[in-house]
Amino acid sequence: MSAGQPLKLAIAGLGTVGAATGALIRGQADLLMWRAGRPLVLRAVSARDRAKPRGFALEDVAWFADPVAMAREADADVIVELIGGADGAARATVEAALAAKRHVVTANKALLAHHGNALARTAEAAGLVLAYEAAVAGGIPIIKAVREGLAANDLTRVYGILNGTCNYILTTMRESGREFADVLAEAQKLGYAEADPSFDVDGVDAAHKLAILAAVAFGAAIDFPALRIEGIRHVSAADIAYADELGYRIKLLGIAHRSSIGLEQRVQPCMVPVGSPIAQVDGVFNAVVAEGDAVGMSFYQGRGAGAGPTASAVVADLIDIARGHRVATFNQPAASLKKLPAAPSERHRGAFYIRLMVVDRPGVIADVAAALRDESVSLESMLQRGRDPGAAVAVVLTTHETEEGAMKRALERIGRLDAVVEPPRVIRIIEAL
Amino acid sequence: MSAGQPLKLAIAGLGTVGAATGALIRGQADLLMWRAGRPLVLRAVSARDRAKPRGFALEDVAWFADPVAMAREADADVIVELIGGADGAARATVEAALAAKRHVVTANKALLAHHGNALARTAEAAGLVLAYEAAVAGGIPIIKAVREGLAANDLTRVYGILNGTCNYILTTMRESGREFADVLAEAQKLGYAEADPSFDVDGVDAAHKLAILAAVAFGAAIDFPALRIEGIRHVSAADIAYADELGYRIKLLGIAHRSSIGLEQRVQPCMVPVGSPIAQVDGVFNAVVAEGDAVGMSFYQGRGAGAGPTASAVVADLIDIARGHRVATFNQPAASLKKLPAAPSERHRGAFYIRLMVVDRPGVIADVAAALRDESVSLESMLQRGRDPGAAVAVVLTTHETEEGAMKRALERIGRLDAVVEPPRVIRIIEAL
Repeated sequence: MSAGQPLKLAIAGLGTVGAATGALIRGQADLLMWRAGRPLVLRAVSARDRAKPRGFALEDVAWFADPVAMAREADADVIVELIGGADGAARATVEAALAAKRHVVTANKALLAHHGNALARTAEAAGLVLAYEAAVAGGIPIIKAVREGLAANDLTRVYGILNGTCNYILTTMRESGREFADVLAEAQKLGYAEADPSFDVDGVDAAHKLAILAAVAFGAAIDFPALRIEGIRHVSAADIAYADELGYRIKLLGIAHRSSIGLEQRVQPCMVPVGSPIAQVDGVFNAVVAEGDAVGMSFYQGRGAGAGPTASAVVADLIDIARGHRVATFNQPAASLKKLPAAPSERHRGAFYIRLMVVDRPGVIADVAAALRDESVSLESMLQRGRDPGAAVAVVLTTHETEEGAMKRALERIGRLDAVVEPPRVIRIIEAL
Repeated sequence: MSAGQPLKLAIAGLGTVGAATGALIRGQADLLMWRAGRPLVLRAVSARDRAKPRGFALEDVAWFADPVAMAREADADVIVELIGGADGAARATVEAALAAKRHVVTANKALLAHHGNALARTAEAAGLVLAYEAAVAGGIPIIKAVREGLAANDLTRVYGILNGTCNYILTTMRESGREFADVLAEAQKLGYAEADPSFDVDGVDAAHKLAILAAVAFGAAIDFPALRIEGIRHVSAADIAYADELGYRIKLLGIAHRSSIGLEQRVQPCMVPVGSPIAQVDGVFNAVVAEGDAVGMSFYQGRGAGAGPTASAVVADLIDIARGHRVATFNQPAASLKKLPAAPSERHRGAFYIRLMVVDRPGVIADVAAALRDESVSLESMLQRGRDPGAAVAVVLTTHETEEGAMKRALERIGRLDAVVEPPRVIRIIEAL
């Protein structure tokens, strides 16, 4: 594969992303050749339905009904896996490609979150590239930024908005004042959310991306089971309105934080200060903040999904391969990657927003405050809007930074108070830079 | 230079950035070795004052009083040029390094803006790297993002806040309501602006960076003389207040835009919608927006200057060299780079803000509106705050998109009206994504 010779490609999966990738390689061939230093040539494709139009000419490429057979047999230097899913055909295709000594480019976050360590070891042992820019934050070149652009930094924290569906729902909830179920139903009608939305709204998709991002940022093995994952189903219009009043936005964040207590990896709804860049990221956009010792805070925003942005990331990986770039898959040689010890959740530090539904009578706030004081949780603010003696009213509290264990113990005691008529709602507050 | 062997470095210039670079290479040696795949070893330095403490050990590195001699003679694979300036010692050092077959890493935007084309040809002809991530937007890995991360895209527009001093001054003017001269004097006292501030506040520094960014984005030769450059000296507190009222922020932007009329390269104060990400970038931060056909809008923000962020970018370039990355300096082979035809300024399109000081009497607005109409410039809004019959009052207009030539002709006629008592102040409005 010396400079000037074509880089031969095969694409497995011709859904919207696969079709856009093929169209980009074909439609932008001259520009890509200048940039890559040699032609990118599509030699084979595999998809279920051969008759379906894909938006680019397929007559001169080999057709495979079976992607695994293509990975083994196609005349290709690189197999582009765009099938999706943690196992099944996608995994079999990637494993077959590596076994047949072909580089792999994939957009498959589930596959990497579950099998990335083993695949990286296999690829590196064979001197092959396993590239996955498209798997995290779509069109934002965040893997490249973290692994190369910030390579001089000891990174301490990486966090971001990694799921556009959730961000669209939260944005619409805030703008319209409507509840989750209502906005989700509309998003499904508009095609912004899947018929089965759980992968997105329960945080699993964001968690897959976070697990990959954390591995790259900290030069560690992917440790998906260590993630704490909470979605956005329980975020209410009331919490969003209170956040507004307190100067925050609620965002579903994936957060990876390395400290003396270990590695913390969480996906959960968080409040971020309205003046921070990440608070301003609305709708289907994704964004990532990386904090390093030399560079300080750096921030990246772009489209997190969709055919064009994802194809842009896939083809960027292909150009890197054509240019001869070789970087360890997760920033350090795969054979040397270790899982970092997980930080015990009770020792995670943070400030908290707490919404209580309490019976409006004298002494309730004193009992709540006493429970917090006894666990050394320091109150930052308290507000109760409206009076309704004898009935249930909302009381909103924010705390200073504390340990999650102390917070949990105080909340258990508060939840047992007679006057507290619903389980407390708790949302973490993030000091976003 | 096979994998595992040390990459030997020599640093020319030990000011704040040079010292931080040396300290980073020394202090983070283990991490950098994992990332780079081999040790980065400092072998030589050159600076004026040997006695001055630099924050890292210098006993075991060769000392050169003359950076050019070091570039020729040091036992180094890479010469890191951190002297600064378009000519003189910096240029001589880089030329000597390339002649002696050493790679070059530099943070020197002036050198590249003026001599980048020739230096890139020399480097590429000799198979050497000329790397300059630190020259544009400091800690933001924007060269890498545009040249590699977005390599699949046909880019149409790249723009950003490229000078932290100007952004700090404009931010402080808005927050305090004070005038430019007053805020500049304070910034000088605080060390945020130089004693001679013209390089920053007149837009030259931003222009150097824009010229480089445009070359990378469009795979073109750098064409610094083609830039239109306007600084921030004429931005008044009144304009900033009116911008606020109209829903805009005033930012000094560098804008490169390629269209059917040619390449437009401008540095000038612009109004951007307050809801756009770039409008939210305050203080000393830099930010860049890149717009591509596949990826859509992508946005990058971080610290644009300072020892740590700049050293982060310099060392990222060193790691790229150690990893064996080779990319054409300006995104296409230097020998093939051509200057793009410059778009004639009268054909640049845009919307405009116009502030007039007019005598408050009937008929003046009609005369102004007629002058705009006769040049087919369409008004979007008009506002006159306060009445003061017979005295001068401010009238603020915004237009729809028009050609700059038409705008200019209308303004000449407006400026000649008896009732218009000061030259019109005009600021371009940018439809930032």
